[in-house]
Amino acid sequence: MSMTELKTPYLVFLGDAQDLLMAKVAKGVAHWRPEKCLAQYRLEGAKADLGLPEMPIKQAAEAGAKTLILGLAPMGGTLPQSWIPLLIEAMESGMDIASGLHIRLNDIEDLVAVARRTGQRLIDVRHPELSLVCGSGKPRSGKRLLTVGSDCCVGKMFTALAIHQEMAARNIKATFRATGQTGILIEGSGVPIDAVVSDFTSGMIEQLSPANEADHWDIIEGQGSVLHPAYAGVSLGLLHGAQADVIILCHEEGRVQMDEMEGFEVPDFDTLIETNLHLGRVTNPNIRLGGIALNTSSLSEEDAMKAIARYQEKYGVPVVDPVRTGVAAIVDGLES
Amino acid sequence: MSMTELKTPYLVFLGDAQDLLMAKVAKGVAHWRPEKCLAQYRLEGAKADLGLPEMPIKQAAEAGAKTLILGLAPMGGTLPQSWIPLLIEAMESGMDIASGLHIRLNDIEDLVAVARRTGQRLIDVRHPELSLVCGSGKPRSGKRLLTVGSDCCVGKMFTALAIHQEMAARNIKATFRATGQTGILIEGSGVPIDAVVSDFTSGMIEQLSPANEADHWDIIEGQGSVLHPAYAGVSLGLLHGAQADVIILCHEEGRVQMDEMEGFEVPDFDTLIETNLHLGRVTNPNIRLGGIALNTSSLSEEDAMKAIARYQEKYGVPVVDPVRTGVAAIVDGLES
Repeated sequence: MSMTELKTPYLVFLGDAQDLLMAKVAKGVAHWRPEKCLAQYRLEGAKADLGLPEMPIKQAAEAGAKTLILGLAPMGGTLPQSWIPLLIEAMESGMDIASGLHIRLNDIEDLVAVARRTGQRLIDVRHPELSLVCGSGKPRSGKRLLTVGSDCCVGKMFTALAIHQEMAARNIKATFRATGQTGILIEGSGVPIDAVVSDFTSGMIEQLSPANEADHWDIIEGQGSVLHPAYAGVSLGLLHGAQADVIILCHEEGRVQMDEMEGFEVPDFDTLIETNLHLGRVTNPNIRLGGIALNTSSLSEEDAMKAIARYQEKYGVPVVDPVRTGVAAIVDGLES
Repeated sequence: MSMTELKTPYLVFLGDAQDLLMAKVAKGVAHWRPEKCLAQYRLEGAKADLGLPEMPIKQAAEAGAKTLILGLAPMGGTLPQSWIPLLIEAMESGMDIASGLHIRLNDIEDLVAVARRTGQRLIDVRHPELSLVCGSGKPRSGKRLLTVGSDCCVGKMFTALAIHQEMAARNIKATFRATGQTGILIEGSGVPIDAVVSDFTSGMIEQLSPANEADHWDIIEGQGSVLHPAYAGVSLGLLHGAQADVIILCHEEGRVQMDEMEGFEVPDFDTLIETNLHLGRVTNPNIRLGGIALNTSSLSEEDAMKAIARYQEKYGVPVVDPVRTGVAAIVDGLES
């Protein structure tokens, strides 16, 4: 597998984003990997602010920036023509360009020509060039945790990053393994698993999370849900490839209807847990539930703590809201 | 979705194949769709024989052949140089070329140039050009049967084709829906589902098997197994996209070890049936087991009939060996 590694530090490009919702990827990179972010670069009229030093391209290059991160979703999904000279300037100043956009920078002739001339890279993380391998199912050393979901967009990446951060703070050997474009731009490497041809899903996760020291944890970002009507195949390939020792169930408290799937309700926790463990046993007979991570942002503090206590009582595992409570209780459980 | 339709009738090219194992795809096309096969074309020294009239390219073209089917796997997976002039001659005589090979005809410059000049098509069924769509999970009219497996290569395509044939003989409205390259060359259309990017697996099957008359059956070719350590994601995406009303469990009697998966045993029938039904209920709450199709070729006639009787007793559904007994019992069960 050829897995792109982004060079650090980054200049995070915010364009003319009016808020951080428009710059979600940039926000994730700055939040989780501040040490990799040298500066931000904003166009006139931009209101989004990551709180990083402001630097135009040349100044950032002189200060050592190695990669310009294109971390926003321009309206309509296309790249504004006016940005192209800026990206060319960045390459001419010695930076690679990394993009999580749907459109491919490698399809834009002017950019490709400059990349060729300067030797800089155009890295489209949604469109990886991978040498594909099928799964073997063979056990490998090291420990693996996978975040699994009740639906899409329930906090699987956030939870995995929070657990990784907590482990790092405790000097537990751990690596975050990214499987989506935001996670990849945060970590600087990974496999955008939903862009891989289906036959290779498990095999690519085996490559992403190779054999490691016995006390090393891979914290693998999950995708979708094994009971999702459109994307369950991705989630199951990921579960099998991960050979997870531990799964953490992630859920947005209060979500009843599945996101963008009219007529589909979010399955109950019992079904979700049992289905994930049953399917996960195919490649790891010792798979277990290590905790539940709730997004309780729609609840009051009091109701949130009640919900957490209720699930903890029912399932007998640590239950957290990574934002409200942190994930220490989950990591405590893994250490004990 | 742009689904390639092959023009009929076919000239089936056998190269210098020494036996029908080397020409498995050609054999499948001639066996299941004899009415589409005008003739066979063999090179000197070939011993494989489909029992079709022999015709060289020009004669076949004059007799009306519209597509040359490249239905074999040359040694080493490459296309022998000496075949290229033959394929050019076929295009110049007015035929499309359809290939199930791993290598792409569309990567061979000489062929592409002639295709452009003559207006004939080079159809690589393993490398489809598809407009990709995600699944919606929305129910659609018509009835759907999916063959599911205990492993790879256990007779899922054969069983689906046999059920389709039996239905056609009874004037039941039915369409065979191909999901692998051999099935696609047999049917003349389909989606090679293991070559589709994982996010789109379910959506492509929804497109392959669209809404239909209430009494029409789609007989959908399954792939892999939902408990396969490497390919379960493909099988699950297929199951969800199919919204199967009925599944037929396919198994090779006597297989204990999974094909090419060292250390993995074939799961037991109870687990396979319950897992498929449990997962299938996500998109069709009324999914049911409609029968079991065994490949009993490793057993004596007596032992085969005993195995069939034993499963029938245990699971209470029709059990067949499509080759030994035919599949009438399964179709009887669907009609009752």
